[in-house]
Amino acid sequence: MKLLRVGAPGAERPAALLPDGSLVDISELVPDIVPQTLHPEMLRPLAQRLEERGPELPRLEHGNLRIAAPVHGVGKIVCVGLNYREHAREAGLPVPSEPILFLKAGDTVVGPNDTVRIPRGSEKTDYEVELGVVIGVQTRYLDSPAQALSHVAGFVVSNDVSEREFQMERGGQWDKGKNCETFSPLGPWLVTADEVPDPQDLRLHLRVNGELRQDSTTADMIFGVEHLIWYISQFMVLRPGDIINTGTPPGVGSGFTPPRFVRDGDVVELGIDGLGGQCHAFRGYVVSRADDAARLPQPEPAGGLA
Amino acid sequence: MKLLRVGAPGAERPAALLPDGSLVDISELVPDIVPQTLHPEMLRPLAQRLEERGPELPRLEHGNLRIAAPVHGVGKIVCVGLNYREHAREAGLPVPSEPILFLKAGDTVVGPNDTVRIPRGSEKTDYEVELGVVIGVQTRYLDSPAQALSHVAGFVVSNDVSEREFQMERGGQWDKGKNCETFSPLGPWLVTADEVPDPQDLRLHLRVNGELRQDSTTADMIFGVEHLIWYISQFMVLRPGDIINTGTPPGVGSGFTPPRFVRDGDVVELGIDGLGGQCHAFRGYVVSRADDAARLPQPEPAGGLA
Repeated sequence: MKLLRVGAPGAERPAALLPDGSLVDISELVPDIVPQTLHPEMLRPLAQRLEERGPELPRLEHGNLRIAAPVHGVGKIVCVGLNYREHAREAGLPVPSEPILFLKAGDTVVGPNDTVRIPRGSEKTDYEVELGVVIGVQTRYLDSPAQALSHVAGFVVSNDVSEREFQMERGGQWDKGKNCETFSPLGPWLVTADEVPDPQDLRLHLRVNGELRQDSTTADMIFGVEHLIWYISQFMVLRPGDIINTGTPPGVGSGFTPPRFVRDGDVVELGIDGLGGQCHAFRGYVVSRADDAARLPQPEPAGGLA
Repeated sequence: MKLLRVGAPGAERPAALLPDGSLVDISELVPDIVPQTLHPEMLRPLAQRLEERGPELPRLEHGNLRIAAPVHGVGKIVCVGLNYREHAREAGLPVPSEPILFLKAGDTVVGPNDTVRIPRGSEKTDYEVELGVVIGVQTRYLDSPAQALSHVAGFVVSNDVSEREFQMERGGQWDKGKNCETFSPLGPWLVTADEVPDPQDLRLHLRVNGELRQDSTTADMIFGVEHLIWYISQFMVLRPGDIINTGTPPGVGSGFTPPRFVRDGDVVELGIDGLGGQCHAFRGYVVSRADDAARLPQPEPAGGLA
């Protein structure tokens, strides 16, 4: 199944993309796609009813519909840092010996084609195409990576938008540059796990204003999806509606010399084979305020405030 | 107002502690204490109805009631690192020149007296008494710290439980040691902002098995509450139901030589003047499994997995 949510912000309806490419409203089958919907015991009968009833469900027109993130009420987004060897190299950081984890809050999530806001004062806003794993079953202390995939509802395209100055130069904990408003475009579809035969064999790509910047495959991950889920489950509980951002391949803006960060008006397109594509514009938060850069809090003189 | 939630997990009712010390069920006045309840425009009429109706509301017996976290559906917990000069010193880290931020997910929240689980394999579980700020109004790009307190619903005692090995020695991003299950005891009460005349004049204290370990005042914060809210609002949106953990004073277990971490069966009591106290036992996650330490994922040989 390819599940999605369409409509204006706050008024989304659940929908599905059928194998013949048509888009149908499935609000007769399920009120919304929420964390509770993602359990296999909920997805299975939904898939069955969709197969039976699909042809008679209300058709939706592609094109003039806003697509939202495919899950309403995303919990935490557990992000994996430097999980592609060449991306670690371009970041000038050592290849990690175990997964590096950081968090994005669920309130950063927007739809795949919604405008992404460049934060006030930002000079280093950057993109990261990633395979997102959507958790469907509560996951705690897995015995082995082999148990991992049965806890997955599906997969999704994720742009792990980042502000590199906030992330790297403002105290050292990355969350500050990862949780700006609109920094988690998700979607267009949640593709259920049964339709992704091998999550380590997916091509990812990202373009800025038409220019290919990232072009890789999930085969190049250092730690694969099963390993990551097992690993994370030793440190925290993964719950339905949580997302794992599995890391980005090389080609991010900060990896170029000189860096090529995103500017107001840039259009970023990204996608993963079989999971669909995103296309969003980046816009300065308040473009009319020329003094935004000057407003960014500056570090105090060494030693902090008295 | 002192608002709280009482009852078994998943079946909590809203309650209030009246000025005369009696505890009343307020479910006639409000269905639950959720993020939407925290806006001043909701809290003000609630306070008024409580004052009018308080004497006739059903009394609850102290003592044999479980107290839950005072807000259902906490969003993100934005944590401030090293915000007391002496704590930075005991951590062996420089005093920050601007606030260090990291995140706890809302799903780590438990009640103030609930058991805290020592994670499997943990040798370095630690405590941190902190003043928690509960956001009541959406907060984005404040012009100045002077605007901050009008966005606060109230204050709460928070134990920012931490696993120091996971936090400091397993990749360098602190979230890994901050988001273990049950690592955010909150409560007992949410004290509304109008009843806290000066959040920079509150004594905090924490005892382990009766021994005083932390004893300080919020006057010693490097960055005060107003500054923190203003600062955080330049990087992310704060929403009703979000919490700010404002940092811990000296005396954490990792600050001793040798360190004095929490062990199975230890009882931790903490409190803040006027905000009430917590008392919780720490328990090994699965005490019957002797091999837990051996199960913790170990870093791969340098360079990561091939």
